[in-house]
Amino acid sequence: MSEFEITGRNKVKRMPERGHYDHETVYAIVDEALICHVGIVQDGEPVVIPTIHARIGDSIVLHGAKASRLLKYVGEGNQVCITVTHLDGLVLARSVFHHSMNYRSAVIFGRGYVIEDPDERREAMRAITEHLIPGRWDDARQPTPKEDKGTAFVKINIEDASAKIRVGPPGDEDEDYELPVWAGVIPVRQTYLPPEPDPLLHEGIDLPDYVMGYSR
Amino acid sequence: MSEFEITGRNKVKRMPERGHYDHETVYAIVDEALICHVGIVQDGEPVVIPTIHARIGDSIVLHGAKASRLLKYVGEGNQVCITVTHLDGLVLARSVFHHSMNYRSAVIFGRGYVIEDPDERREAMRAITEHLIPGRWDDARQPTPKEDKGTAFVKINIEDASAKIRVGPPGDEDEDYELPVWAGVIPVRQTYLPPEPDPLLHEGIDLPDYVMGYSR
Repeated sequence: MSEFEITGRNKVKRMPERGHYDHETVYAIVDEALICHVGIVQDGEPVVIPTIHARIGDSIVLHGAKASRLLKYVGEGNQVCITVTHLDGLVLARSVFHHSMNYRSAVIFGRGYVIEDPDERREAMRAITEHLIPGRWDDARQPTPKEDKGTAFVKINIEDASAKIRVGPPGDEDEDYELPVWAGVIPVRQTYLPPEPDPLLHEGIDLPDYVMGYSR
Repeated sequence: MSEFEITGRNKVKRMPERGHYDHETVYAIVDEALICHVGIVQDGEPVVIPTIHARIGDSIVLHGAKASRLLKYVGEGNQVCITVTHLDGLVLARSVFHHSMNYRSAVIFGRGYVIEDPDERREAMRAITEHLIPGRWDDARQPTPKEDKGTAFVKINIEDASAKIRVGPPGDEDEDYELPVWAGVIPVRQTYLPPEPDPLLHEGIDLPDYVMGYSR
């Protein structure tokens, strides 16, 4: 199993037993997420922007309007940090101190470039669409040259990354197990409700299977 | 309704009609979220860290181990960016280009300080616990001096902030409404499954009402 090199920036320092550096674990977290949070530096100060992403091999692609500050920043070759987090549960310990969350997070570092090649741009748009909902690319109307022209795509090469995962019940101090306090986990899930047709949808257009059975 | 001043950094530039600057809208997004993503700058490069938060008035409190790089960074008086995002739906347009997400996000800028005052530290711990699950503070075992000693609390004064919200069905190009492509929204929700008792929970400890009926 290939692993990311542990560097000063991707090393899990707090609770190191929760750290993972293998590609498989990191990429599974990235691929399950509908959005990521991207960190950039603007005038020396941090800015965190939520956006849609897709992974292509060892890279992340992002897209947006050409004037977007995020895409400009990446296009200038600056380092970005891309963080993805799944919440899996509230962990209720007997003591306030040991309360926690079950989660899976991935933190990715790298720098990227603006994708200029038309085929690579198309591949990025396809990857982002299929990342959101597999099957959609072949069904929806493809981008026109005008739509394509206004969109910027960037590709960030993943230089190093790590995952941090907590699972399981609370861990309390030995003496606290005697306390008459309920302890356990409230599981948290991201769920998908039945699709709501556009009020302007014409009669006779069936709900596609890939929409009906949507889950991640 | 009080509003944040619009500055260079909190102004919603892309899709400005989705921007909101009133405290009520921003704070509702912050308060509903179980976690936030905090951006810091380390060696000139961005780092985005997911963490638990709570809002106290016009401030955000965070906590963690004293050695945490995030808390050290805030303690040094540096600017942070705190971003909170709720995903509400996948928006499937007839065209690939108009695919989107329904979401509510809040981006907060400010700088903070390490909380030293014991009463203020206790208020922060209480706010964080009650933010996760109201009713828990009075039920769980309170922090000992030793536990308290190892924990750092920081308070970030919110200087400016904005929210960005998308709701509703897809918006397609006029001519695309004739296409035989299904369009609509797949609603996304964060849900809470039935609580799972700690396997080490003693017999006879009832599930508290505030756990049983948990929702946000």
